[in-house]
Amino acid sequence: MRIDAQQHQTKNNHMPQPLNEFSFIESLRNCSASCKSLEIGIGDDAAAWRVAEDSLLVTTVDMLMEGVHFTVPPATPLQVGRKVMGVNLSDLAAMAARPQIGVVSIATPRKYGSSFLQELQAGMQQQAEKFSTTIIGGDTNIWEGPLVVSVTLMGTATKKGVVKRSDANKGDWIFCTGTLGGSILGKHLDVTPRVREALFLHEKYQLHAMIDISDGLIGDLFHILEESNKGATLFTDKIPIAEAAFLMKESQLIKEKKSPLKHALSDGEDFELLFTLSSQQGEKLLAEQPLDIPVTHIGIVTEEQGCKLHHPNGTQTPLTKQGWEHSF
Amino acid sequence: MRIDAQQHQTKNNHMPQPLNEFSFIESLRNCSASCKSLEIGIGDDAAAWRVAEDSLLVTTVDMLMEGVHFTVPPATPLQVGRKVMGVNLSDLAAMAARPQIGVVSIATPRKYGSSFLQELQAGMQQQAEKFSTTIIGGDTNIWEGPLVVSVTLMGTATKKGVVKRSDANKGDWIFCTGTLGGSILGKHLDVTPRVREALFLHEKYQLHAMIDISDGLIGDLFHILEESNKGATLFTDKIPIAEAAFLMKESQLIKEKKSPLKHALSDGEDFELLFTLSSQQGEKLLAEQPLDIPVTHIGIVTEEQGCKLHHPNGTQTPLTKQGWEHSF
Repeated sequence: MRIDAQQHQTKNNHMPQPLNEFSFIESLRNCSASCKSLEIGIGDDAAAWRVAEDSLLVTTVDMLMEGVHFTVPPATPLQVGRKVMGVNLSDLAAMAARPQIGVVSIATPRKYGSSFLQELQAGMQQQAEKFSTTIIGGDTNIWEGPLVVSVTLMGTATKKGVVKRSDANKGDWIFCTGTLGGSILGKHLDVTPRVREALFLHEKYQLHAMIDISDGLIGDLFHILEESNKGATLFTDKIPIAEAAFLMKESQLIKEKKSPLKHALSDGEDFELLFTLSSQQGEKLLAEQPLDIPVTHIGIVTEEQGCKLHHPNGTQTPLTKQGWEHSF
Repeated sequence: MRIDAQQHQTKNNHMPQPLNEFSFIESLRNCSASCKSLEIGIGDDAAAWRVAEDSLLVTTVDMLMEGVHFTVPPATPLQVGRKVMGVNLSDLAAMAARPQIGVVSIATPRKYGSSFLQELQAGMQQQAEKFSTTIIGGDTNIWEGPLVVSVTLMGTATKKGVVKRSDANKGDWIFCTGTLGGSILGKHLDVTPRVREALFLHEKYQLHAMIDISDGLIGDLFHILEESNKGATLFTDKIPIAEAAFLMKESQLIKEKKSPLKHALSDGEDFELLFTLSSQQGEKLLAEQPLDIPVTHIGIVTEEQGCKLHHPNGTQTPLTKQGWEHSF
């Protein structure tokens, strides 16, 4: 679930660009703040609503639009279906919630016909089934416009509750799963939401703050830092750079050429987990490496606000939400 | 929530036309049938999921698209916001569920700007607040395409459970609330979901089957009859025809001229309640007239399948889902 109005441009920059919509978000914040059973409202990956004494319902919604979040072709309807379900599952993963049910709404172009719709639906089903999620209903419409798909997912919190963005502490170690950067070369369409990894980590370790990397490492780290009222230092030599980030130089998709590190820091849609825990818990996690994918210690939470890149030569580069000010 | 793929044409025919998508719906039916905690899946106005022992969560989703369900102008963003929230509230009313929380996803045209978005949001908030519903989150996107708004609402069943489409009995009296027809002259944009009426009726009477009139009286009656495996006779002289249905002859919006009765029978988007109860309960309801709007006894459920119109002169006209075969 996105908490601000955004624009995505798929081809040459798929980092979302926030629209100046504070009043809109504030109005939602105020409104949802008045609902007592709402434990987490606007400002996290998903909202958490105490539906019954022993049940915390975690809800997220994401809408994907043709020409903005994907283009058909090269994306197939199966891939679009998997992606839209995947990004929503990733939002529940970010809260360490267990996905349960979903509803979908679709505006599908008449020219695509019913086999396209079936493929799209199959992609959603495949992805949902992988994570024991049941699609319980939907609203399917035909029109002359581009394809629009919206998925709302509901999950439940485990006994340990959910992991928020706002609970990072000073001295926490910052970790991410997998490798980062260059997702536009394929991973952004072949989303593997880290649902199982999040539930496992939440069960075995004391996670403090968590988010999924959809806007890019720096952008999403800033979401954690702002909600937690903290700063951070990232170690440039520790960032796990994806192979795809190295291939970006050769890609015809991108006009602005950046280093693989910069791709890893700023590219969106990797849908890996970014989380913090105490240094003791971090050491344990690092030693145990309990997942099938790497977990990497990439930085430290600081009391001092703002975010810096620490280079191996001892120099530091200040980071802004938009990226960096100086070359490195 | 719509259970089949549909096309709406706003200007000259706003009756939805189903697309041949049986396999799509069947696949959803099969999938959702496998989820044990799902008490009502595809095939009703909303799905009902047993989220906790004492809590039945009722969920619906509806997507409205510019140029299909509304045109801007004449519709204002405030009206669009009220409508999209209203149609979803109406789906929960159809189940006699109490609305609780909602999430929204929006694709808004860049040219409309942020004040448009704020108005749209205000319309949704106004409508939600009227029915004690909290919007807990959303996903707002800017694009070059037409406006698309999707709302997912969650409500809870009262202690009496929900009212389904499938429980109409032979001999039941068929009722509707309010008056019908000509909604395109204004009511379709100024939706007043019958949430309070539905909850009141459910509490005070033993309702058997219920639906909201979104596709038109005949179309929605057929939904009840098909799910209940029954037929019906409607009394032409009992149908409560709206003033707007009489004004349709003068309207420039409609090319095909129909009688006011035909508008009342077939026009969509009145968002009134259509329900059945035993003749004893029906007599009681008719005598008490407990609502601020009229409740009218318009027909009877029959064991024999199919649907007929009974005219005051004793003749009968067979009805099909699409309408009627002979003139009357």
